[in-house]
Amino acid sequence: MRINPSHAVRMSKYFLPVLRETPQEAQTLSHRYMLRAGMIRQASAGIYSWLPLGFRVLKKIEQIVREEQDRAGAQELLMPTIQPSEIWKKSGRYEDYGKEMLRVKDRHNREMLYGPTNEELITEIFGNDLRSYRDVPKILYHIQWKFRDEVRPRYGVMRGREFYMKDAYSFDISPEAGRLSYNKMFVSYLRSFARMGLKAIPMKADAGPIGGNLSHEFIILAETGESEVFCHSDYIDLDALKDEAEYDGDLQPIIDRWTKRYAATDEIHDEEKFHREVPVNRRVCARGIEIGHIFFFGTKYSEALGAIVDLADGGEKALEMGSYGIGISRLVGGIIEASHDANGIIWPESVAPFHVGLVNLRQGDGACDKVAESIFSKVASLGSDIIYDDRTERAGAKFATMDLIGVPYQVIIGPKVVERNVIEVKNRKTGKSEEMSHDAFFNLLKA
Amino acid sequence: MRINPSHAVRMSKYFLPVLRETPQEAQTLSHRYMLRAGMIRQASAGIYSWLPLGFRVLKKIEQIVREEQDRAGAQELLMPTIQPSEIWKKSGRYEDYGKEMLRVKDRHNREMLYGPTNEELITEIFGNDLRSYRDVPKILYHIQWKFRDEVRPRYGVMRGREFYMKDAYSFDISPEAGRLSYNKMFVSYLRSFARMGLKAIPMKADAGPIGGNLSHEFIILAETGESEVFCHSDYIDLDALKDEAEYDGDLQPIIDRWTKRYAATDEIHDEEKFHREVPVNRRVCARGIEIGHIFFFGTKYSEALGAIVDLADGGEKALEMGSYGIGISRLVGGIIEASHDANGIIWPESVAPFHVGLVNLRQGDGACDKVAESIFSKVASLGSDIIYDDRTERAGAKFATMDLIGVPYQVIIGPKVVERNVIEVKNRKTGKSEEMSHDAFFNLLKA
Repeated sequence: MRINPSHAVRMSKYFLPVLRETPQEAQTLSHRYMLRAGMIRQASAGIYSWLPLGFRVLKKIEQIVREEQDRAGAQELLMPTIQPSEIWKKSGRYEDYGKEMLRVKDRHNREMLYGPTNEELITEIFGNDLRSYRDVPKILYHIQWKFRDEVRPRYGVMRGREFYMKDAYSFDISPEAGRLSYNKMFVSYLRSFARMGLKAIPMKADAGPIGGNLSHEFIILAETGESEVFCHSDYIDLDALKDEAEYDGDLQPIIDRWTKRYAATDEIHDEEKFHREVPVNRRVCARGIEIGHIFFFGTKYSEALGAIVDLADGGEKALEMGSYGIGISRLVGGIIEASHDANGIIWPESVAPFHVGLVNLRQGDGACDKVAESIFSKVASLGSDIIYDDRTERAGAKFATMDLIGVPYQVIIGPKVVERNVIEVKNRKTGKSEEMSHDAFFNLLKA
Repeated sequence: MRINPSHAVRMSKYFLPVLRETPQEAQTLSHRYMLRAGMIRQASAGIYSWLPLGFRVLKKIEQIVREEQDRAGAQELLMPTIQPSEIWKKSGRYEDYGKEMLRVKDRHNREMLYGPTNEELITEIFGNDLRSYRDVPKILYHIQWKFRDEVRPRYGVMRGREFYMKDAYSFDISPEAGRLSYNKMFVSYLRSFARMGLKAIPMKADAGPIGGNLSHEFIILAETGESEVFCHSDYIDLDALKDEAEYDGDLQPIIDRWTKRYAATDEIHDEEKFHREVPVNRRVCARGIEIGHIFFFGTKYSEALGAIVDLADGGEKALEMGSYGIGISRLVGGIIEASHDANGIIWPESVAPFHVGLVNLRQGDGACDKVAESIFSKVASLGSDIIYDDRTERAGAKFATMDLIGVPYQVIIGPKVVERNVIEVKNRKTGKSEEMSHDAFFNLLKA
């Protein structure tokens, strides 16, 4: 069997520029760790290149989001980054967006812009091609780079200017039908974040410039969060993956379970209500990071851009719409803020750049090298991604690198374990090491 | 087993806006078919949205390119679309690019640009982080949107302004080592295009604005090609997938086999040499479409941007570089130009948006619907993507749609075949239909 080199990486050949020093420009923990672990480099303020290690994590998160969007029945397409200004003038947001919109003039002096979001363009596409009540319901999504020209980009990828986002748009014939689409995305978000090892809590939110009156933010708790949030502690114990979501069935019971208790961001927090509804020993006041935001806003864009369909009775109707965003590049930072220790990142297995890190303590020793090579190819053949530190470095430097880049399982090979035909396996999360047979470890990976 | 809805699509719910009329604005065949098949829609001149059907093909092509880049040992990263102007001033290309470069000023009036290519940025990244001869050889690549502000964008995605491209960059210590990297990319390109069902012929080419003196274009022959090409007919019979490429071994024999005979684009065509080297009955003069271009250009960018490494002997050396591009969005059009008939697109299986198209001639008939549903879920469970025309349309309209969108296998269900417990399977490429048992068809898919 031929193993694709991208699944079995030798550190001696890998582009992994780990930094020993903490970079001066980074104010937040995730930004520092991403720079130190060689995941990203700044191209200019708020704009990053994703080096191989960071790119792997970005893609794993993207794939989880994609699978859960598909599963909810959303259909993937891809809109361009550069948009014409006309559609934004129709919706009235061309001026509203102000300086945060990156405006461009092309060689023929036409006004264009780098899309900060896509309500206008998707509504135009839908309205041009679909004209019947039979064409809905539909949820369309894409995963594409966006640009918001922040005054002060900061916190690394958490508040960058060029950022990677999944945005979905729902089209329905009535507000009631629209609510069903909203519920699908709500459940899809719960599942997506849970698969990434995150405890995301949906909180009532202000709809802001998107418009509309039904909106939830999905928030993860982290000490370094940008805003204050308030919720009932019951949410923390809920498991979003417990139920198989049946998207064609009734999702309302799931929505109710996730919304019946108090949860609000500081923007709309009601202290009096919080105290009335939540017993004192269940009140969570914490810092939170927004990782997703969903909106139902009705006909604002469909009316402005002509997404109007013919009805069965001969009338016509502007479609009821919602939009649903997940910040994919931001999530990379968010997961680090939620999962790390003093030595570095602790990746949840589902988004880890590699599942296994192999440390050879005696590189160049025939017996150690032979065992390391056999584990390297065996792990890859089992379908787990592995990175092998085959450099001639001190043991301490090798351990520090593996801890920093946060690989879930570290397999340590040295003369002593090789002699006894076992391996030492360290769990990055618990910090515990144990000796086991090679087969016991392979079975662990297969489980 | 739960089947992800993206692998088993019902046409009644799918966003597939097929057009009966040929759009006026489209001059070329691939552009017309892509619009008619609901693959793309124009957002503005030379800028397209990829609707679900087109997006699927784009992603399949991207994945083949990725797998073959990985296999050749190239490492994937991702650079941003918006770049700072400074690095382009260092290389001297900020002015050279002229109006084809989309220039942007951000809110702080800083000069930025939408990257038309990435030699400058990758060289800066490499030069900042890697400083030793031990850090090379390395080949880094990314797959990202680019922008070239063409005066007259045309031919749909074949010459768009915003386009999707894989670009790789090699870094080596000497020209001889650089040649080895060049050979890896050369072979990777042969394999990538062959896997897409294309006969791509490497032709000596002019290096143009990238610089350097070693360069090949990969050309497919198509009547609608943009330029004239000349080659020995032996190339047409070569099979790039015949050899397992051993990237750590000697690739020169493969390179020799693909370069020893005459092949040149009109830019550097030498009629006298062509006649001298190629027997008259082996001379191919045809139209060609460029789908890939590779360059070895030495130290032009590494010197300008400081990608300089320390040598073992204490000296230092500017790295020897090459760059290697594949136009992924362009390939979608290119494959259609090379593979179609009067009824529509004929997708090679490896890039087809769906493997199987299921046509139910009697939608609503209990027996037909039941058989169609069972085939629908069985095909999906076998891992083949299927689209089911479950609309209440005439048979003729259903056949026309399946032919237009080019699905390789069409399975036709009607009362007659249902009664005899067989299915009719039409091969889109040959146009031949045959009856077979359900199991015979499932075995065909598994093969």
